Amino acid sequence: MQPDGSISQAVSLAKARLTSLSSHLRTSKPKIVVCRDLGPDVMPLLVKRDDLEVVLWTEDCVCDREWLLKNVQGAAGIVIVFSELVNAELLDAAGPNLKVVSTMSVGYEHIHVPELVERNIRLGYTPDVLTDAVADISVMLALMAGRNANETMGIVREGLSLIKVSHTSNISPSRTVGFLGFGRISHATLARLIPFGVTDCIYSSNPNSATSSKKERDEAILKQHHPQLKSLRPVDKDTLAKESDVLFVLAPGGPSTRHLVNEEFLRKMKKHSVLVNVGRGTVVDSDALAKALREKWIWGAGIDVVEGEPHVGKDHPLVKEPRCNILPHIGSASFETRLAMATLAVENCLAGISGQEMPAELDVKAL
Amino acid sequence: MQPDGSISQAVSLAKARLTSLSSHLRTSKPKIVVCRDLGPDVMPLLVKRDDLEVVLWTEDCVCDREWLLKNVQGAAGIVIVFSELVNAELLDAAGPNLKVVSTMSVGYEHIHVPELVERNIRLGYTPDVLTDAVADISVMLALMAGRNANETMGIVREGLSLIKVSHTSNISPSRTVGFLGFGRISHATLARLIPFGVTDCIYSSNPNSATSSKKERDEAILKQHHPQLKSLRPVDKDTLAKESDVLFVLAPGGPSTRHLVNEEFLRKMKKHSVLVNVGRGTVVDSDALAKALREKWIWGAGIDVVEGEPHVGKDHPLVKEPRCNILPHIGSASFETRLAMATLAVENCLAGISGQEMPAELDVKAL
Repeated sequence: MQPDGSISQAVSLAKARLTSLSSHLRTSKPKIVVCRDLGPDVMPLLVKRDDLEVVLWTEDCVCDREWLLKNVQGAAGIVIVFSELVNAELLDAAGPNLKVVSTMSVGYEHIHVPELVERNIRLGYTPDVLTDAVADISVMLALMAGRNANETMGIVREGLSLIKVSHTSNISPSRTVGFLGFGRISHATLARLIPFGVTDCIYSSNPNSATSSKKERDEAILKQHHPQLKSLRPVDKDTLAKESDVLFVLAPGGPSTRHLVNEEFLRKMKKHSVLVNVGRGTVVDSDALAKALREKWIWGAGIDVVEGEPHVGKDHPLVKEPRCNILPHIGSASFETRLAMATLAVENCLAGISGQEMPAELDVKAL
Repeated sequence: MQPDGSISQAVSLAKARLTSLSSHLRTSKPKIVVCRDLGPDVMPLLVKRDDLEVVLWTEDCVCDREWLLKNVQGAAGIVIVFSELVNAELLDAAGPNLKVVSTMSVGYEHIHVPELVERNIRLGYTPDVLTDAVADISVMLALMAGRNANETMGIVREGLSLIKVSHTSNISPSRTVGFLGFGRISHATLARLIPFGVTDCIYSSNPNSATSSKKERDEAILKQHHPQLKSLRPVDKDTLAKESDVLFVLAPGGPSTRHLVNEEFLRKMKKHSVLVNVGRGTVVDSDALAKALREKWIWGAGIDVVEGEPHVGKDHPLVKEPRCNILPHIGSASFETRLAMATLAVENCLAGISGQEMPAELDVKAL
């Protein structure tokens, strides 16, 4: 929220309330609450339909919770982004009409899944479509962390002409990349890194998936990047920390991965290594990472996600570290990707409220 | 220079003067002036030799001009970086002993070549070794410009949690990259971009090089990136401006390329295109680029070089543009690259003062 935005915020709340009220008086059709304007290409899929009541948060900022709790009442479907917490409070406010929650994200840490199961509410999400955009950001942050982008850009911003030798960086033509979590985004990131001179890849991933299928997959990846990529192998977390020159955190969120990257892990890393987190903020202990950067256990970091976001203030320990390149969770924020995500989210929602098969449904009972 | 560095600057000047004086009294061997500390791996190549007098600017900042003019007197060789202007003033100060100028750079805009020719002084430079490091930075800046890195990092820095839809970006899975100047760094940049989804490449380069050899080279590049790269063709500057989604400026400096990218050129570019300059600051008109960003003729820019650097203050028109990602000329600033450049610069200098073949000499008479 902008610090000086309280008046415009109040006006927008009032406007939104009026819109909601008038549309409610007009109709008693299935109601869909949309927490972000999905743009001129996607919104018509909803608003042009006579058989739906659509209530939209129209502001170009995070949806107001109070507004949402009021407007969600009686909704059959909700289209949300990662900033909307879906918990008992929201679901109770919605009431028994709610059939589907459709999130414009691949992750679902903001959703209390057991609460959905209890109420028999379906969950749509948007996998795959954001792979390329997030892989792009992963490579960008790896380069930025290695080449001290934030620190050296700060020199320009302050109008100084001083370039110190210490601003040189660690990019090497022969190096090992590590992945904590090795799914589609990791594969796409690795593919982008090959022409930069990456020769070896190690990863640590979900121990529950079948070893045989992993082996087959790894052989295919090695073949795809032959002859540049010399090796690709699963390792334990200890080896991952010790051998990675660039470490990408792309593990899913949740309690099982919380603070996997902690002080103990960071102390094992190479002095010239960089850490990139574009997965989930919760996987990395922010205080430990700040300490690692301050005390130079590692060279630098590039992160698109932070535990506790979007509430990351000026005095956050990572914001204070010049060697920490921080983006405000824009990994999937490219025009094409957001368009694809928004389209899929609407399709999921529409299928969900009419009891049809959803293009991308998460099996909440199996989670 | 740091604003509060005047005292330490004075102390360092005094120290350097003493070092120079005592070494001059001690020896009458060939003198080499080195304008940047080349580090513990390279300096011994010079200082461990008994048959040389080495005078070094030891501070971790741009070499002081006054210090250089005093110490260069009687030198047989000078090792410099791009921040040292080699003109009649410096060469006159050096006097008739000077046999070689060795620059730790691939460009030589800071060197008045006719003055070298007139005095029969040889010129060493460091081509090739910085190709990979600069190609890395080129890709990094293209991604940063496309994904609004500077603007969105500013949001985090200010402690705001507001992510606007307008912060989404223009990366597209199918797009055309353009190169103004198509030498080794451009080829290395193109190779890195292929896995990002680049399908077509256009370029505009030196009209003096032979068309037949270009054709052969282009066929080899197309083959190398088959089947991802669909087309590669030379175009005129008008087409380059109109068709590039990402335009890389990698042309050499000098009067013939000055302000090739001016207001007229920028007005022809696509609204969602980004401009990357890692070549020479002089090729892009800074005022025109600032206007293009302010008035949204193009989406964003990423630059490692600015006309007039290193004197780029807080009030520079480009520093004020949030869509301009500016690095302080760190394109070649990686450990390995600087090591290779420093080694080559020393080898050039030593060969030059002893009248031998230099590993990388520029034929100043042919320029």
